[in-house]
Amino acid sequence: MTCTIHLPDYPVLLGPLSETLPAWLQQKKYSRIFVIADANALAHWNNTALLPGTEMYVVPCPPASEHAGGAERLKNLDTCALIWNAMQQARLDRQALVVNLGGGVVGDMGGFCAATFKRGVDFIQIPTTLLAMTDAAIGGKLGIDFNGIKNALGVFRNPQAVFADPVFLETLPARELRSGFAEVIKHALIGDYELWEKIQKTTPEALSPGSMTADAWTEILEPSIAVKAQIVTLDPHEHGIRALLNFGHTVGHAVESYFLETDEPLTHGEAVAIGMVCEGLLSTETETILRIFGRRPMPESIFPKLWERMQHDKKNTSGAVRIAVPGTEPFSLQILELSREEAFRRLKLYDSFDSFEF
Amino acid sequence: MTCTIHLPDYPVLLGPLSETLPAWLQQKKYSRIFVIADANALAHWNNTALLPGTEMYVVPCPPASEHAGGAERLKNLDTCALIWNAMQQARLDRQALVVNLGGGVVGDMGGFCAATFKRGVDFIQIPTTLLAMTDAAIGGKLGIDFNGIKNALGVFRNPQAVFADPVFLETLPARELRSGFAEVIKHALIGDYELWEKIQKTTPEALSPGSMTADAWTEILEPSIAVKAQIVTLDPHEHGIRALLNFGHTVGHAVESYFLETDEPLTHGEAVAIGMVCEGLLSTETETILRIFGRRPMPESIFPKLWERMQHDKKNTSGAVRIAVPGTEPFSLQILELSREEAFRRLKLYDSFDSFEF
Repeated sequence: MTCTIHLPDYPVLLGPLSETLPAWLQQKKYSRIFVIADANALAHWNNTALLPGTEMYVVPCPPASEHAGGAERLKNLDTCALIWNAMQQARLDRQALVVNLGGGVVGDMGGFCAATFKRGVDFIQIPTTLLAMTDAAIGGKLGIDFNGIKNALGVFRNPQAVFADPVFLETLPARELRSGFAEVIKHALIGDYELWEKIQKTTPEALSPGSMTADAWTEILEPSIAVKAQIVTLDPHEHGIRALLNFGHTVGHAVESYFLETDEPLTHGEAVAIGMVCEGLLSTETETILRIFGRRPMPESIFPKLWERMQHDKKNTSGAVRIAVPGTEPFSLQILELSREEAFRRLKLYDSFDSFEF
Repeated sequence: MTCTIHLPDYPVLLGPLSETLPAWLQQKKYSRIFVIADANALAHWNNTALLPGTEMYVVPCPPASEHAGGAERLKNLDTCALIWNAMQQARLDRQALVVNLGGGVVGDMGGFCAATFKRGVDFIQIPTTLLAMTDAAIGGKLGIDFNGIKNALGVFRNPQAVFADPVFLETLPARELRSGFAEVIKHALIGDYELWEKIQKTTPEALSPGSMTADAWTEILEPSIAVKAQIVTLDPHEHGIRALLNFGHTVGHAVESYFLETDEPLTHGEAVAIGMVCEGLLSTETETILRIFGRRPMPESIFPKLWERMQHDKKNTSGAVRIAVPGTEPFSLQILELSREEAFRRLKLYDSFDSFEF
């Protein structure tokens, strides 16, 4: 099963790579193909035959089990210099194609390297994690961290195409799958109630490796990607409605950043799940998220630290934190001003639920 | 005297900064102003009052007398890291304005840093050399060198405005002025025969510091910038007619690169002047260029080295070098295929003129 989601400037081709990639490449006339690959994804990439005669640069990613912050450490200017150097060694010209094969780090960083090499070489994204397929690979945001600040450097530039093959999801650890699922939930709540209905039937067990077929994944990925595609089409440079994609992330980033410094870091998706609950969902929505993600107890003593981090995340207006949350209609935006007291009340509310660990 | 050249996305404001910059800034609502300045230009910049309360990052450029390749050595990723770091220290947000005050190196590199900081902050160009005013600052090409390859990394992104104040030309050494004048000549030959008439009356003495008034410069800058503006408007991403701006540069880059390794390096403009002569002008045009630039004798023995470098510059088609030269009509493009023999014939022709040194 394959399907295509059309953005104004490029398609997202969903389905087995063997059915989507060769036909697409054949229409194009690229002088060379240069692959930037995550070592993990590469180990599961049995399709090099799809790209005969390509140069390959492998980004040395740590094993996927170190997913909480692992690859992110490599998303910096030093790795870019290695990639640009490899591009020069391969004598890439402007008629070349760069292929980014991997998770969000490879897509963001490889895209940035392609977009800045000789003032821009075409690139395609082949996301291999759920997070990258449903979120990071779509929308043209590229970049790297600098001085420890996330995505401090980057550009907006669209890929020529995105190829999402659910087969890669079979290779992901359960925790990585669940982490990506947070963005699927977010997209459903932002703009697709039918997808939300589907998600309510999803059990935590369904998110264990190999328990869902590729076709079942395609049925979830297609509407989820479509929500992201609609929003970035309406607002490519984040001047308005695109802020909605940040739902769950203001609190989520604060939680993620706090736990990264502890012995039990959370994945991005786990933190976003907490963020969505705290940023003000209705109770049935909260229940569904907690059923999938469980609940991470947080001692009251960390609240001041979370609040401090939340203030870093966005511009403060008189001590409040502005958050974009979904309105009552699909694709409607509601701006919430969270005072310190209100933020604490919501975080405490979250923590007073009956607890079960993850 | 002020005048404005309107490109589709931004204006070029020509005239005293005190008459152009404050009025423009007042219309905008930037949160901060961050200046990236060439130390030389800054020494002649008596207008800091124009930009009250700005953060300033000074690019440590060598003195302008070291113009043959001097500042170019700083146009790299290390200097960018210093600039990005300074931007972070100044806590620039996306509503800030970056001001690039200096020659082509500052404009290209500062623009690249602005275009990639937080996925793009607005910037304006205040070119302070003739080369930058008439050429480098116009057209949205930004970038830095990497591994010794010129402009290996970069993006296309337009400034919000360009401010060209001829007063800065009074501070330039004669050789730097003449160097920039090569691009004025190029623009005249490409697209403005009236400007060409004016240039034929220009004496080498007129290009000594302070001998031309700001208004006289404005009368030359305006049509020269207008030619560049028309071409980059027609072809912003260099797919066709923009190749015309490369006139004189295929041979010129080879000559510049060769002499850079000798004890007597040429400036970019001096090399381009030789390039324009060799790439096939009519004799009256050649005479005018030689009158302004003099002639640099070149021993026949270096011809093979020049040919080798010319082949690096462009894609070879069966051993020939493709060059874009002006056609018989203004803004018309003629593609010349130069074989090894033909290239040698032209270079020898150049060298058999009566010689006078510069």
